Amino acid sequence: MNIVDIIIKKRDKKALTKEEMEYFVKSAVNGEIADYQISALLMAIFINGLTEDETSFLTEAMVNSGDICDLSYIDGIKVDKHSTGGVGDTTTLIIAPIVASLGVPVIKMSGRGLGFSGGTIDKLDSIPNFRTSLSPEEVVSAAKKTNLVITGQNQNLVPADKIFYALRDVTGTVDSIPLIVSSIMSKKLASGADSIVLDVKCGSGAFMKDYTSAKELAMGMVNIGNKAGKKVTAVISSMEQPLGNYIGNSLEVIEAIEVLKGNTKGDLLEVCLTLGGAMLLNAQKVSTLEEGKALMQETINNGKGLEKFREFIKNQNGNPEIVDDYSLLPLGKIVKEIYSPREGYISKMDTALIGEAMVETGAGRHQKADPVDYGAGIIMNVRIGGYIKKGDVLAKVYSSSEEKALLAEKLLYNAFTISDTKSHAGKLILDII
Amino acid sequence: MNIVDIIIKKRDKKALTKEEMEYFVKSAVNGEIADYQISALLMAIFINGLTEDETSFLTEAMVNSGDICDLSYIDGIKVDKHSTGGVGDTTTLIIAPIVASLGVPVIKMSGRGLGFSGGTIDKLDSIPNFRTSLSPEEVVSAAKKTNLVITGQNQNLVPADKIFYALRDVTGTVDSIPLIVSSIMSKKLASGADSIVLDVKCGSGAFMKDYTSAKELAMGMVNIGNKAGKKVTAVISSMEQPLGNYIGNSLEVIEAIEVLKGNTKGDLLEVCLTLGGAMLLNAQKVSTLEEGKALMQETINNGKGLEKFREFIKNQNGNPEIVDDYSLLPLGKIVKEIYSPREGYISKMDTALIGEAMVETGAGRHQKADPVDYGAGIIMNVRIGGYIKKGDVLAKVYSSSEEKALLAEKLLYNAFTISDTKSHAGKLILDII
Repeated sequence: MNIVDIIIKKRDKKALTKEEMEYFVKSAVNGEIADYQISALLMAIFINGLTEDETSFLTEAMVNSGDICDLSYIDGIKVDKHSTGGVGDTTTLIIAPIVASLGVPVIKMSGRGLGFSGGTIDKLDSIPNFRTSLSPEEVVSAAKKTNLVITGQNQNLVPADKIFYALRDVTGTVDSIPLIVSSIMSKKLASGADSIVLDVKCGSGAFMKDYTSAKELAMGMVNIGNKAGKKVTAVISSMEQPLGNYIGNSLEVIEAIEVLKGNTKGDLLEVCLTLGGAMLLNAQKVSTLEEGKALMQETINNGKGLEKFREFIKNQNGNPEIVDDYSLLPLGKIVKEIYSPREGYISKMDTALIGEAMVETGAGRHQKADPVDYGAGIIMNVRIGGYIKKGDVLAKVYSSSEEKALLAEKLLYNAFTISDTKSHAGKLILDII
Repeated sequence: MNIVDIIIKKRDKKALTKEEMEYFVKSAVNGEIADYQISALLMAIFINGLTEDETSFLTEAMVNSGDICDLSYIDGIKVDKHSTGGVGDTTTLIIAPIVASLGVPVIKMSGRGLGFSGGTIDKLDSIPNFRTSLSPEEVVSAAKKTNLVITGQNQNLVPADKIFYALRDVTGTVDSIPLIVSSIMSKKLASGADSIVLDVKCGSGAFMKDYTSAKELAMGMVNIGNKAGKKVTAVISSMEQPLGNYIGNSLEVIEAIEVLKGNTKGDLLEVCLTLGGAMLLNAQKVSTLEEGKALMQETINNGKGLEKFREFIKNQNGNPEIVDDYSLLPLGKIVKEIYSPREGYISKMDTALIGEAMVETGAGRHQKADPVDYGAGIIMNVRIGGYIKKGDVLAKVYSSSEEKALLAEKLLYNAFTISDTKSHAGKLILDII
């Protein structure tokens, strides 16, 4: 087999075989083919697409390019969840403890944030002394103890994805549905769970800007997961405004605790009930999604979710007292308020711009290696459809740097559209596949 | 300007501007963009194509990436010629001395052979002591003396083409008409001639397999040349069988001399008269192509072409006595004859296979760095439509290696199709643009 022949085949819109995909992925990881050959093939894939079979072959070859986690040491149906990323999207910290408290094991590898999309590991790192780098042995003992572990990614999980992603980022081949599907699903399949619930965001603050492409991505991921013998559910939800009102790292931890305490309702809660309900359904703890959602709400009401969250923090060396005393979490000392320039109704938000403002506060990263200001971020005071008077506070910026806070403030003044007539936010949950 | 934006633009089928092409070529040569970015853009260009304007911008930027020859030190209209490459295609050694003897200066940079396509420089290197590496000063003095110089390419002529070609070769992006056009024309334009005659081959032994793609390539090159203010003529000729009957390096020198002596007629002569006639027309030495062809033939008949060839060899330090004594040229001692397995008419030849057999004799190169056996090659005894008896010799292989001769012999047995009914070769000159 020869990489040039494989490139030419895809260039000429022909389908690649399982063996050809395996050869491509293996040789890329072994260093037997050059970066310029990988990028030429990625561009041919971007333009000419992949069939469902080809995407499946590619994903499987990527899974096999590194370590595959074996979670058989723990009993029960293990359910993983993944979000395609959005702004104020802190669902994992809410769902995981509730589901785990109901006896469904959650052993989850999460990533760090990049651009407007936050990462669960960064949020957890804002908790004093919390450990997100666990050895495989520590993961096993932590999982056995509490049924819930969230850790950073194993360095040898899907090494092919690291190579492909780094090249895609600098060769204009990021936004390809089959390449996104294989990137996400290879990592989820290698993580070893029995079932996967996918949280696919669409709208101005998400990777997929419209419903059609979000649905295509969701269908692609469900198909690939099913082909690999996993039960997969995808929930498509709207990201036309930040999901929660707290955006940042420690700020999102606080909002997650508020939801677990039953104090915060709204969109964030609703998406969490749906995703968690789907996880309970896939784990066979309930027999309908509605039953799952009700059980999620009940577990908030009876405090068991919050209890599991405390236990989880303690189990990974963090300070569980943060649950009762938020002043133990970092918070930026520089505060800027964004005032409404007029009276009216919030009719639209540029969620990507709010995400960019979050990055500017210091809470996010422009580049992978950038440091993170855990106490920085934004608290939103309004939602779409809300009435405001001139001079009302629309949002508050927190940062440890005056300069950064000013940059974020400047961006935020352009993020809101205010109209005379009241408009309503669109549907939150758009589809469940 | 940013290379990722440029790649994305072409990926999305949008036309690149002059400034974007300049940025791309300049940054590729400066090393400011990476090979994997160049190859991603080349693949996007391969699949999505280039407009005529884009091809022109790319070619111009490539011309400006290195040295541009100034031939103004010599009077008259300088006409260059270029062949897209074929088997037994030794036209330059015949046309150049005839045209030069008629007062049209020919200062030509040629390349070496790769694969089935031979190179003029390799052929000249088979002449004892002939020098093909001349300094710029030597080119000037040689041109002033004889009106005819053929030399290897200036190392800094179109460095962008060297970078692009090396990447295209290993990323499946060779057969792209706009990329071929810009590669050939950038070198021709940088070579400094006032007019260019292009010899575009089509058929089993050429790069372009069919008339449609040969015509597209020819039109593309003529357009780009005209845009750059040069008079360009393209002659499309058939390569359904080797053009001449001698294939190799010293063997092609011998056949060229035989044509210049008036001993060898046929297809090779006809193509030479047409290409040379077009050069004379473009140099304003004649007023019609027919007149040019007649003048070419007359210059063979009166021996002036042969005389110029002797002078040219001497001028570049070679031994002009080879013209009268072919034993001064190398010739492989191992000889294999290919016998006809049956009686009938030659109805078809696999010219690419004959070219591969030529490479196997040692006369050609698989890889750029391979050495060449100057005395190796093939003499063809038959042409399409010719009648043969069982056991007649179809071709003779010459090599300095028994093993190589056997490899070539084996290939050649599959190169001929013999039928009961007589068929004729198609038209030789298919179009003049």
